[in-house]
Amino acid sequence: MITIDDIQQILIVGAGTMGQQIGLQCALHGYEVMLYDVQEEALATAVSRIAAYLAHFVKDKRITLDEAVAIKERIFTTTDAETAAMDADLLSESVPEDPVLKGKVLGQFNQLCPPRTIFTTNTSTLLPSMFATATGRPSQFAAFHFHLPVWDANVVDVMPHAGTDTAVTTLLTTFAQRIGQIPIVLDKEHSGYVFNAMLSALLKSAISLVVDGVATPADVDRAWMGIMKTPIGPFGIQDSIGLDTVWKITDFWAKIGGHSTDLANAAFLKTYLDQGKTGIKSGQGFYSYPNPAFAQPDFLHKSE
Amino acid sequence: MITIDDIQQILIVGAGTMGQQIGLQCALHGYEVMLYDVQEEALATAVSRIAAYLAHFVKDKRITLDEAVAIKERIFTTTDAETAAMDADLLSESVPEDPVLKGKVLGQFNQLCPPRTIFTTNTSTLLPSMFATATGRPSQFAAFHFHLPVWDANVVDVMPHAGTDTAVTTLLTTFAQRIGQIPIVLDKEHSGYVFNAMLSALLKSAISLVVDGVATPADVDRAWMGIMKTPIGPFGIQDSIGLDTVWKITDFWAKIGGHSTDLANAAFLKTYLDQGKTGIKSGQGFYSYPNPAFAQPDFLHKSE
Repeated sequence: MITIDDIQQILIVGAGTMGQQIGLQCALHGYEVMLYDVQEEALATAVSRIAAYLAHFVKDKRITLDEAVAIKERIFTTTDAETAAMDADLLSESVPEDPVLKGKVLGQFNQLCPPRTIFTTNTSTLLPSMFATATGRPSQFAAFHFHLPVWDANVVDVMPHAGTDTAVTTLLTTFAQRIGQIPIVLDKEHSGYVFNAMLSALLKSAISLVVDGVATPADVDRAWMGIMKTPIGPFGIQDSIGLDTVWKITDFWAKIGGHSTDLANAAFLKTYLDQGKTGIKSGQGFYSYPNPAFAQPDFLHKSE
Repeated sequence: MITIDDIQQILIVGAGTMGQQIGLQCALHGYEVMLYDVQEEALATAVSRIAAYLAHFVKDKRITLDEAVAIKERIFTTTDAETAAMDADLLSESVPEDPVLKGKVLGQFNQLCPPRTIFTTNTSTLLPSMFATATGRPSQFAAFHFHLPVWDANVVDVMPHAGTDTAVTTLLTTFAQRIGQIPIVLDKEHSGYVFNAMLSALLKSAISLVVDGVATPADVDRAWMGIMKTPIGPFGIQDSIGLDTVWKITDFWAKIGGHSTDLANAAFLKTYLDQGKTGIKSGQGFYSYPNPAFAQPDFLHKSE
C-alpha cells in the first residue's frame, strides 16, 4: 500500500465550492492538486474562486504573494478523466449527493487510476458503505469529510466503512494533519458524522423556538451568543450555510421521519426561500448583509 | 405599580449557588440584597462563597478591594421571613424545583411582603403558570431566569405567564439591563426557555454520538471546539454543569417521554455517577480536574 510520504498528487473530482476549498487546502500544504470536472465552465469558475481566496489570504497576511503564486502553480485542471487519474495518489470526490452517481464516478476512476490511489468521498449526508462496492476498491475507500471554510473550520471526519483497510484510515488521519486539519476518526459509520449531527440538533432546536412563537431569531441568537461568547448564533450560522441548504436537509428528514416539528421547521424555512432569501449569498436571510445586525457592537444589549 | 427607579432592595429566597450568584450580581450593580434561607448553615456557606467570589473579582481586577468591601456591606442575611420581606422591592426565588414548594414559599412571602414587591422565580425546568395562583399575586409574577456563572453567562430569560402584567415584564427587562444582564423576553412560556432548550438539544446529540459508539467524548469535543472555536465542548460543558444535574434532567425527560435514545443517554450518564464522577466538583467527570485535557494547548491536534 502507498505510504503517507509517497503521496504527492491529490485528485479532486468535482470542482464546486467544496472541491475548490479542499484542493486549495492541499495546495497550501505543498501538495500538487489536479481539479477535475466534467464542465470546462466549472473549472474556469473554480480557478477564479481559488485566485480570489489566495488574494484574500495575502491580504490577511496568511501567506505572501510569492507563496500565493507558487500555490496557484501547484493546481492543475482538466476535463479529461484519463489525464486527471494518471498520477493521482489520493482522490477526493465532491460530486452531487447521489449514491448511484458517486458510485458510478468512482467506479470510472477505478478503471483509470493507478492501483495505489486512495479513494475518498466528501459526502455530507451519505454513508461510504452505500457505494463502497461500486468504487471497485472498497478496502482503499473511506469518507474524508471537510467543513466550510476548510481553512478555518479545520476539522475532517475520517469515516471508514466496515470494509476499509485500517491502514487506509491511519493514512488519512495522518494526511489530515499534514494539511492542517484536525482529524476526527469515527468508530463506525454515522449519518451527519460528528459535528454536523450536533449542529443539526442545535439548529433544529433554534428553529423550533421561533416556529413555536417563543422568541425571535435575533433573541435566540442573542441568548446563544451571550452565553457561549461566540461571534455568531444559530440563525447567523444558517444564513452562512445558505437557507436553501438548511431547508433541503430539514425537508429531507421531515419527509423521511414525518415528525410534525421537522415538517413545521421545513415549512418555516421555505417561506424565506419563497421570498428569495437564501442567506448571505442573496444579501438577505434572517439578517441583511453585508452588515448583519448580529455583527453590530450593540447587538447583545438590544432587547426586542 | 412600583417603577424601576424605586427598586432598591432585592430579596433572594434560597441561598444556594443560584441565589448567591444572583444576589451578588445585584449587589455588584448597587442594589441592597437580602439573602433569606430557612437554614442558618446555608446562609453561612453563602456568605463565605460570596466572599470568595469577591476575592476572585479583585484578583481579576474586575473590582477594587474597596468596591468589594462596599458590595459585601450591601448584602444582608436572615432566616426570619418577616425581616426578609419587610423592605423587599423585588423577590427572586431559587428554592428546589418543586412547583408545590415554590407556590407555598411564594404564597407565604405574599403575606409578608409589601404590596409593591415584584415576585420572580428562577426555576430552570418549571413554568411560572404552574404556581402563579399560589403566589397570591399572579399579575406581579414572572420567571426571571439566570445562567451560571451569572456574571459571565450574563443572559436572563424574562418569561411572563399569561396573567403577568406587561408592565412587570417591561420592568424586569430594564432591571436585567441595570444589573449587567442581556434580557431575552419570551413571547410565551416554554420549558427550558431559550438557551437551555438549545443546549439540551446539543448535549443530547453529543451524548448519543458516544452512546452509539460513533466517537469518544474527547473527539466529540474536538470536533465542536475545532469548528466553533470555543474553549470548551459539549462534554466539558457537562462536567461544568455537574453530571448529576445533567443526568437528573436527562432521566426526568427519559421517564416522561420513554424514548430509547433518552433512556440510553441517562443510563450512560449514570455509569459516571456510580463511580462518583460528577464533573469538576468531584475532580473527575469526562475529564480530570483541575487540568482537563481539553484545556491543554495540544488538545485539538491529538487524534485518539
